[in-house]
Amino acid sequence: MDELTINLKNNEVPYYEQIYDYIKSQIQAGKIKYKEKLPSTRKLAAYLCLSRSTINMAYEQLLSEGYIESRPNKGYFVCNVEDLFRLDIQNKSFYELKEEIGAKYKYDFSLSRIDLENFPYDKWRKISKNILSDDRKELFQTGSSMGEFSLRETICNYLYRARGVNCNPDQIIIGAGNEYLLILLGQIIGKGKCIAMENPTYTQAYNTFNSMGYKVKPVPMDKNGIRIDKLKESLAQLVYVMPSHQFPLGIVMPITRRMELLNWANDGENRYIIEDDYDSEFRYKGKPIPALQGFDTDSKVIYMGTFSKSIAPAIRISYMVLPDKLLEKYKKAFSFYYSTVSRIDQQILNTFINEGHYERHLNKMRSIYKNKHDILIDEFKSFDSKVEVSGENAGLHILINVDRLNISVKKIIDKLMKKGVKVYNVNDYLISPVEEEKNTFLIGYAANSENDIIEGIRIIKNTLFG
Amino acid sequence: MDELTINLKNNEVPYYEQIYDYIKSQIQAGKIKYKEKLPSTRKLAAYLCLSRSTINMAYEQLLSEGYIESRPNKGYFVCNVEDLFRLDIQNKSFYELKEEIGAKYKYDFSLSRIDLENFPYDKWRKISKNILSDDRKELFQTGSSMGEFSLRETICNYLYRARGVNCNPDQIIIGAGNEYLLILLGQIIGKGKCIAMENPTYTQAYNTFNSMGYKVKPVPMDKNGIRIDKLKESLAQLVYVMPSHQFPLGIVMPITRRMELLNWANDGENRYIIEDDYDSEFRYKGKPIPALQGFDTDSKVIYMGTFSKSIAPAIRISYMVLPDKLLEKYKKAFSFYYSTVSRIDQQILNTFINEGHYERHLNKMRSIYKNKHDILIDEFKSFDSKVEVSGENAGLHILINVDRLNISVKKIIDKLMKKGVKVYNVNDYLISPVEEEKNTFLIGYAANSENDIIEGIRIIKNTLFG
Repeated sequence: MDELTINLKNNEVPYYEQIYDYIKSQIQAGKIKYKEKLPSTRKLAAYLCLSRSTINMAYEQLLSEGYIESRPNKGYFVCNVEDLFRLDIQNKSFYELKEEIGAKYKYDFSLSRIDLENFPYDKWRKISKNILSDDRKELFQTGSSMGEFSLRETICNYLYRARGVNCNPDQIIIGAGNEYLLILLGQIIGKGKCIAMENPTYTQAYNTFNSMGYKVKPVPMDKNGIRIDKLKESLAQLVYVMPSHQFPLGIVMPITRRMELLNWANDGENRYIIEDDYDSEFRYKGKPIPALQGFDTDSKVIYMGTFSKSIAPAIRISYMVLPDKLLEKYKKAFSFYYSTVSRIDQQILNTFINEGHYERHLNKMRSIYKNKHDILIDEFKSFDSKVEVSGENAGLHILINVDRLNISVKKIIDKLMKKGVKVYNVNDYLISPVEEEKNTFLIGYAANSENDIIEGIRIIKNTLFG
Repeated sequence: MDELTINLKNNEVPYYEQIYDYIKSQIQAGKIKYKEKLPSTRKLAAYLCLSRSTINMAYEQLLSEGYIESRPNKGYFVCNVEDLFRLDIQNKSFYELKEEIGAKYKYDFSLSRIDLENFPYDKWRKISKNILSDDRKELFQTGSSMGEFSLRETICNYLYRARGVNCNPDQIIIGAGNEYLLILLGQIIGKGKCIAMENPTYTQAYNTFNSMGYKVKPVPMDKNGIRIDKLKESLAQLVYVMPSHQFPLGIVMPITRRMELLNWANDGENRYIIEDDYDSEFRYKGKPIPALQGFDTDSKVIYMGTFSKSIAPAIRISYMVLPDKLLEKYKKAFSFYYSTVSRIDQQILNTFINEGHYERHLNKMRSIYKNKHDILIDEFKSFDSKVEVSGENAGLHILINVDRLNISVKKIIDKLMKKGVKVYNVNDYLISPVEEEKNTFLIGYAANSENDIIEGIRIIKNTLFG
């Protein structure tokens, strides 16, 4: 079987889901039979005039649910679906896969997805191939707890040049994502601490602190970021901030506020600032402000960074820079933990950066995101100031305030969802006790094509004013 | 410069270190000058009749310490070493690299290293290449918290067939190493618990429980494993055991003791057994005993497994199987944590298993390890029962008791170290309060060649009786 005629509809259901639904129903109805071979992804893609990745997504879903199986070098074959055990598993996996694939809406202005159309897969592949050569067997044995020294040295140099971070490679710990590093940091600092957070904030970090048993105190913000008077009132010993581009409000903390924050930390012996610099790579306006860590003279700042935004969320490589006092505690009591990142992946990343691909990729992405950003801002100009745009100086999302309209942000989001457009409520990022809700929604644009941005914003316009 | 004449000595200092030392001293002395090009690894390997990996290790050390730099497609060049900052970093990195490379002794009978001579790098490389193709961009976006569903399904099937574990894919959480999973499990079970551990035990787990704030109670063992009477006396609510092959004692827990352990768990509502099945893939004698989890009818067992021994420690992929009650708690409160394992790596592993490479690799390694194991046991036969061998039925290490000799195990280990042979003291794995020390040392043989095993054991023999 080389062809499969599927009547694809141009509606809200993504193509991969339509293909998946069709093949599943045909197998269930016995029209495509047990042991039958499905068309190759290449052939079906050509036949339906779609990309291979679309066919792949549909096939993967069928694979995971046990409708079809893959035989090496032969292709995809229909399984025996009368096996009840498999059908039992299937319901759960369907839900999960939906979530994994995540493409529920035609225009999902996701805050976590990034543009992966322009990643230099060929370079990454080539480097992987070299790293995986027989010659480098040693890389498969246990590595350093803090991460590969060579990668830490590379990150150290990068941070100095790009972010003004002052450290040496021995202060850097590489870990599988920010949450893991926060848990490790929690063990180093000690249990039962009280931590202040900007409100609203990055809820992943909030949930992590809660799960660690930390007491979290929300602190309100003004236009320059976290309020120092309220921070003092909170009596917290630690504070978690995102000075380069606060999530979700998009505030870039000016240098005066940064200094006030450092002064707060210097006023108490055990006070620390956790600086999360999650998307500082992308900045569109104003002069670059060095990281807080760069101004820190008293070992008060723990700097955190990630490759989730600048390379890909799925590679799970983050890092933190520990000040001396905490580093000592780490080395004494916690360096027994093995690294949580594959050594091979660390070496691939290290080579990727050292050979200049990272810098080239960043430059390319900066220009691509800037274009998307400008198109987005342009589209909102046609709203004639009926909505207020903010957070547009950096990062990969903007905020739309709808105070001037006579409708709640919740209603707007519901209406848009019905039209296949997904935007995000800023109030979902508030932590309790909540002070006041805002009539604001968030639009991420990293993963959307320029055309989809234009189309999506037009639907928003029609929904609000049409 | 294509050649470099190094007078290599056949002594305890590994070749890579001799090469490193030589080049470093030449650079320091100004004999190899700033900007000069070093011979390629290929050419130097050919010239010195060594493997390329040896040269690579030496060059990597020089690279990391800043003596040389790598220029893409050009080769290695000497750096300007007058820069004092670099020299300052260097001392630290040297220590670390020593640790990373780990090859301090000519015959290191390491307990953590494995045989990587026989890994099918070509298959892994080919699968990586396919997974990294442009077609599968979606894999670079955020994946499921619990891990890729397809890999969990694969692990589920494998565990059922190979270990008699009864679960469905939705109970499996994939994580970056056992310690991370134990920390996560600790958050699910709740803080401040009391956990019993076999004594001696796997110190990584012990340190992890301590760092989590758990109270650890050591429980003595008899020849069948952990003593149930002493476990009851400990009043612990949790117990951490390794029934398939206790580390370090090598005891395989018989089925009667397993049942007693399950009965203990069933006697208390919140009691749980953590079953760490870290090297169950390798068994040489006796019938296979299914995992404890397979006998568990009351959701009392948390099963943990890893690919560190069967594939490679550096890939950092482990998993745990949660019983229903804990799974519910996880889903309610802790599934916000992103997965700690790269999606790409998960897919590579999944394909590696599904295409049958894992099974073939396991079979091959079983036979290789069995040969090494038999050679090792044979060599000890010539000791005429002056030492007692145990723990030889499974796993990748054995125990040598020296009670019958008139010398302490500590002295033996010191003497052997001076002769370039590294074996491990079983008492290093005791946890406090320590009951009694044993006159026993441990020999891991996974990473050693058959010849090195024979040579190393002969040195041991000469040292003890020579």
